Amino acid sequence: MEKPTLPKGTRDFGPETMAKRQFILNTARTVFQTFGFQPLETPAMENLSTLTGKYGEEGDQLLFKILNSGDFLKDVDNQKLETRNSKVLAPDISEKGLRYDLTVPFARYVMMNRNEVSFPFKRYQIQPVWRADRPQKGRYREFYQCDADVVGTNSLICEAEIILMIKEVFEGLGIEDYTIKINHRGILSGIAESIGAKENETSLFVGIDKLDKIGEEKVKEELRPKGFADESLDALFEILNIKGSTSTKISSLTSTFADSESGKKGLSDLQEVLNLLRSYGANEDHVEFDIALARGLSYYTGCIFEVKINNVAIGSVSGGGRYDNLTQAFGDKENLSGVGFSFGVDRIYDAMEELKIFPKDTAVSSKILVCHFDEESMRYGLGLLTKLRENEIASEIYPEVTKLKKQLDFANKKAIPFTLVIGSEEIKSGLLSIKDMDRGEQKKLSIDQIIEKLKSPSLKI
Amino acid sequence: MEKPTLPKGTRDFGPETMAKRQFILNTARTVFQTFGFQPLETPAMENLSTLTGKYGEEGDQLLFKILNSGDFLKDVDNQKLETRNSKVLAPDISEKGLRYDLTVPFARYVMMNRNEVSFPFKRYQIQPVWRADRPQKGRYREFYQCDADVVGTNSLICEAEIILMIKEVFEGLGIEDYTIKINHRGILSGIAESIGAKENETSLFVGIDKLDKIGEEKVKEELRPKGFADESLDALFEILNIKGSTSTKISSLTSTFADSESGKKGLSDLQEVLNLLRSYGANEDHVEFDIALARGLSYYTGCIFEVKINNVAIGSVSGGGRYDNLTQAFGDKENLSGVGFSFGVDRIYDAMEELKIFPKDTAVSSKILVCHFDEESMRYGLGLLTKLRENEIASEIYPEVTKLKKQLDFANKKAIPFTLVIGSEEIKSGLLSIKDMDRGEQKKLSIDQIIEKLKSPSLKI
Repeated sequence: MEKPTLPKGTRDFGPETMAKRQFILNTARTVFQTFGFQPLETPAMENLSTLTGKYGEEGDQLLFKILNSGDFLKDVDNQKLETRNSKVLAPDISEKGLRYDLTVPFARYVMMNRNEVSFPFKRYQIQPVWRADRPQKGRYREFYQCDADVVGTNSLICEAEIILMIKEVFEGLGIEDYTIKINHRGILSGIAESIGAKENETSLFVGIDKLDKIGEEKVKEELRPKGFADESLDALFEILNIKGSTSTKISSLTSTFADSESGKKGLSDLQEVLNLLRSYGANEDHVEFDIALARGLSYYTGCIFEVKINNVAIGSVSGGGRYDNLTQAFGDKENLSGVGFSFGVDRIYDAMEELKIFPKDTAVSSKILVCHFDEESMRYGLGLLTKLRENEIASEIYPEVTKLKKQLDFANKKAIPFTLVIGSEEIKSGLLSIKDMDRGEQKKLSIDQIIEKLKSPSLKI
Repeated sequence: MEKPTLPKGTRDFGPETMAKRQFILNTARTVFQTFGFQPLETPAMENLSTLTGKYGEEGDQLLFKILNSGDFLKDVDNQKLETRNSKVLAPDISEKGLRYDLTVPFARYVMMNRNEVSFPFKRYQIQPVWRADRPQKGRYREFYQCDADVVGTNSLICEAEIILMIKEVFEGLGIEDYTIKINHRGILSGIAESIGAKENETSLFVGIDKLDKIGEEKVKEELRPKGFADESLDALFEILNIKGSTSTKISSLTSTFADSESGKKGLSDLQEVLNLLRSYGANEDHVEFDIALARGLSYYTGCIFEVKINNVAIGSVSGGGRYDNLTQAFGDKENLSGVGFSFGVDRIYDAMEELKIFPKDTAVSSKILVCHFDEESMRYGLGLLTKLRENEIASEIYPEVTKLKKQLDFANKKAIPFTLVIGSEEIKSGLLSIKDMDRGEQKKLSIDQIIEKLKSPSLKI
């Protein structure tokens, strides 16, 4: 029998990785909850009628489809079968798919629970999603998304709180050098209007979105054949190249947008978000108004965000924005305005590894291993375990009578920081040998003293 | 467009349900970690070669299969297609499936990471699994499993710790009246030998497993046609009907098993587990030696467990046992002994709802809503939010200027226990009106006093 393997693009998360991932996700969860967001979980499987048509044609092709259970060919038309056309056959043998993101299931949830939900509804959701993408470094077929959204209000307080939450999460993670880029869909529309490209917005935004990666000249090259005259392009880059502080940029654009309602709305929203930050007692540290931030999506209607960790070769680690039509794709006539953002857990993980900033004590592991020499000292150790655990100290015993060296090696391999060695003398005196496995230091202490030491945050013996 | 729906047998977990589920899962997670278990997560998708053949024919049919992505019909044999036989076609168009349980992925993980894992390996895993079962009350197509296993040792310390962990989790959940039934595969084999049914063990165990549901007479009726003589059946029920304490049962069986090695091993293991419990300083409360506990599976080789919450019409909420062949199905020649158990999260949830024992403060919700009368008081409220959140008090503001009644209704609907109302007078004096939404009491306090109140566990104003 062959050795088993994992499906392409999927991963196991062993204890060490899990502990670090839990650290990231718990930090986000705590911040979300402190800001009044409530948890939601939706099923991995959704009806394909829910998923299809929401992510564009490219997205539809990346959906993992689930074969109908039982005799899935029973009702399939013979003619269809004979076409040997996978696209034609698929809908007849598959009704369900794996969720592609957390936004569409959230919209489906809101649509189905319209009457029970209290708006504004603040939910967070931390679950895996699946995409039949070509696997490559940093891109997986199963990965976690970590989203927070508020729907049912267009208050810019929500935008300000997104900035505050990002700051709070990064502080909790120990990430210090990062930039929260902010822009506004209205500002992008204003630019389109002011350079006479109102009818050609989508091409323009796609082009601007690439600026970061391909540079000014290449963007121009791409836009020219799409009907952008050289003078439009010059006007475009005059705007995109405005340098300076946020207030410099805003005042410079104010005159540019004199005739653009969208542009004016964009600027005033942005200004208001910054004003609100001040009311919270926060400042603009880490926040950068990036006129060229486009985030490719026609989806957004207001502020857009993107977060980069500086000096790390990893793309954006968080992003989001305001949308006005969460449930429209489900035939909803009301425009339910919302704003949300998402942390890229895998990328944050990679960045923190690269920066070597995971705290040492994230490890989910016993704090102490109880070691012994024989049956008697092993049994004596069980009572000590109970005392340690009653004090919420994660602890374990080597469960077999074996050589001490093997037990200490086990502690080292599992990165258990302390060991306790019990022999007949220790049983008599009640003074136990505790050893700091990192420093090699050793001491004789009573179990109560040991508990006291292990409970203190400094954890030195 | 039709209103969207959920796939059959799947569920959304909204905020209130999520909070209760998190309470259960966090309680289990904390206990697992205190006992030195480490977290593992495996992907939802596994190769069908990993899953198939591990759960019997019935199980194989309940696997959700994933359609190969892209042109899945491309390489399918025309003849196969023309058979219209779903079972014949399935392997050609589907390579992956959704995991059916957490045990097989765990075995696959151990097999693939044999050299990196330190044995004895203690892992816990809390993830959803999928089964294409007919949905019915309490049975879902997607549900969580919550497993803990130790592999790589046959130490009975592990069995004793399973009992301790179950007790600890139930204490944490506030479940008081429950029974941990314990038996041993060797005892069942001993019974088979002593009634002369050694060659017919499987039928016997299947019969015994049903005793609880169908009663003595029906079990006899089922066993007779399978070659059990009346005198064997009488001997069987003489054993199964032994009443009394665990030690009474053990001493009674000791003579019955005088010639059965399996039976003797079963009894001595059981006795040792109880002795070990005493070494931990624990007692036999809640533990019941149930000679008729069979758990249907040929899988188990040592102790078996099953937990029932008493006076609740819900089946077993936890179960497990020792096995000697975790990785054998993957061609492993070494017998890797292990022992594990699993909490049935959905059933524990239902039982706790029925018993009405969820603590009131499980709700994941803001503790306080900041209300206001106008733009000015709303902005003033933002600074207060920052102070509350700095003190880890989950809090939010109604993000739009609107009538006070609407804001208070919102707090009630979201079950936010306190509100803070800010008007111009409050801004001047710094004394804020805090209201206990449940009791209706109201007081004027400074923000520091409010923070102090909200941080105290009693939470009265």
